[in-house]
Amino acid sequence: MDSAATDFFSSTTKLRPELEALRPQLARFVSQATAKGQKVALVTSGGTTVPLELNTVRFIDNFSTGTRGALCTEEFLRADYAVVLLHRKGSNFPFVTDLVKRLHESPYELVSQRDQSEKQPSSGLPDLQERLLAVGFTTLFEYLFLLRECCQSLASAGPGALIMLAAAVSDFYVPEKEMSAEKIQSRSLDGLTIQLRNVPKMLGALRLWAPEAFVVSFKLETNPNILLAKAAGSLQKYGVDAVCSNVLQTIRDLVIIVQRDPAISDGINISSGSLTGEETEPIEVSGVKFKPVERGSSGVDAPLVKVLVEMHDLRLQKPQQHQQQQRSLDQGSESAAPATAKRQRLMGSGEQEAH
Amino acid sequence: MDSAATDFFSSTTKLRPELEALRPQLARFVSQATAKGQKVALVTSGGTTVPLELNTVRFIDNFSTGTRGALCTEEFLRADYAVVLLHRKGSNFPFVTDLVKRLHESPYELVSQRDQSEKQPSSGLPDLQERLLAVGFTTLFEYLFLLRECCQSLASAGPGALIMLAAAVSDFYVPEKEMSAEKIQSRSLDGLTIQLRNVPKMLGALRLWAPEAFVVSFKLETNPNILLAKAAGSLQKYGVDAVCSNVLQTIRDLVIIVQRDPAISDGINISSGSLTGEETEPIEVSGVKFKPVERGSSGVDAPLVKVLVEMHDLRLQKPQQHQQQQRSLDQGSESAAPATAKRQRLMGSGEQEAH
Repeated sequence: MDSAATDFFSSTTKLRPELEALRPQLARFVSQATAKGQKVALVTSGGTTVPLELNTVRFIDNFSTGTRGALCTEEFLRADYAVVLLHRKGSNFPFVTDLVKRLHESPYELVSQRDQSEKQPSSGLPDLQERLLAVGFTTLFEYLFLLRECCQSLASAGPGALIMLAAAVSDFYVPEKEMSAEKIQSRSLDGLTIQLRNVPKMLGALRLWAPEAFVVSFKLETNPNILLAKAAGSLQKYGVDAVCSNVLQTIRDLVIIVQRDPAISDGINISSGSLTGEETEPIEVSGVKFKPVERGSSGVDAPLVKVLVEMHDLRLQKPQQHQQQQRSLDQGSESAAPATAKRQRLMGSGEQEAH
Repeated sequence: MDSAATDFFSSTTKLRPELEALRPQLARFVSQATAKGQKVALVTSGGTTVPLELNTVRFIDNFSTGTRGALCTEEFLRADYAVVLLHRKGSNFPFVTDLVKRLHESPYELVSQRDQSEKQPSSGLPDLQERLLAVGFTTLFEYLFLLRECCQSLASAGPGALIMLAAAVSDFYVPEKEMSAEKIQSRSLDGLTIQLRNVPKMLGALRLWAPEAFVVSFKLETNPNILLAKAAGSLQKYGVDAVCSNVLQTIRDLVIIVQRDPAISDGINISSGSLTGEETEPIEVSGVKFKPVERGSSGVDAPLVKVLVEMHDLRLQKPQQHQQQQRSLDQGSESAAPATAKRQRLMGSGEQEAH
């Protein structure tokens, strides 16, 4: 797992100069926030694209409007966090979600109403520039490089960092060196076969980039029978602190937060190993606890962030429990190498240690 | 070619009720415009998606911001056309292109400036509702069904109809019956192979849906060496009236309009048959004429539409030439069936004759 992640970063060449420019900006943003005693959230948002050609005309995309990330960012700002928003360019954005919604659903009305004053006040957040740092991505490559960069910067906020992975990240991609240079031609009637590779799982690496952060991942499925098994799998394999689980069909109404249950000493058990996605009965899971969050008057995002902030605060009050959990994960991991060596390998040479 | 198009429509089942609702709306819009002596343009705009799952999480998309279609729609409205805009939902839209640009490029500024009055006046087009009918699509399936519906409605405007196909339409897709029902799972590390089929070419069918319309198609390539050969191929195979050719790298600066050259009696000749897309020398073409349109003070869209309107007007003054061209296309087509029979086959049973 670790070597796949390392390979991914070393075999993708395009993004280095952009990252150099971003690094001091991120460092300054995080240090200003921590100096003021603010917690710092990284929210990822929107879908990543997988280009099929180097000169890209066609790409695979993941469904995500970016609305959850945008609204959760607003809530974290209201809860006095400083927020780094790693968002798909052009997807939904905090404080303009109504505008984007109108563009999608009734652009015609948007045109007719343009000469009227906008009704919604800008934010009531005069210090937005110091509190929100927006970093845009389009492709999977951009996303993963920027994610690493953001996480490594957030590491300096220690346990005061919260990472919410709400972006819809591709599971499959075409590596740079296997990509067609020009637009693929539609000759004859033979169709087209696309051979995609698995995207390396980065959740494990992320724990090394920002070891003390409170990590919240998301799981979106269309088949509710496998949702909790998939969420439990993320807790088991990557040691994330909480998984927000959604079914596509009710994504605006219900989120189930799944966490490891420390009261059950056996750990997590999932009754079925490999999942096809077409399961017709719910897959049973033990060793986890659930917290369903239902939509309130203005959606599910405000109550969701409220619960996550409570969880984060609880962890800040009880850091011992987390350290124990981390140790047991390190012991149980597939690699025999000590955690520090693994960490260095993942970050590549010449880069600053994350912690 | 025709049977592939017919099969496409008969094997896709989802969209019938939506089309029933749209049909009278389109008919009313076109008849109101023709009653006032207005020409009617259909502008298609934005990229189509190809879902990989019925409950769609992943899809293939085609790069297009929708800006060309949005700006050309504005120009056709200024040139006193009534416009049906068949656009990708959420892509760029007439008279709000600056807003969408800011959302993509500097969303942060958009938030900061929200409480100020918008500076751009709404349009100076008080009768916009009667002049612009916006029809939204997301998937390739929606696009092609709606395209057929729009073209058949435009047929009643006779030669006063202009069809500008600026949408970036997928060449490859997964037919409904071959699609995975649920989100495809990323098991093991085997990657994923996607088998795509060719999308039937609809340009031939389109000539039957709206036989007298002035049809302008677009060709976007990344390799300039094959651009004119591809454009000439569209003129030769489908009898479109003009092909606007773009290279991705200069899409905002230069469009080359390619037309059949009636002065050359031999017809169109292209020096190479099958193209790989990686050609390193320009492919030679004869029997066509070119008109390069370069960007003016506000982009290339206004001068482009100006030229197309002049071409359309010229055709309205010289209808004989067009009829001759159509006859020669019918004679040269691969099917031996007379044009009327072909037309009925393509429109399906129970639907109104397009002409």
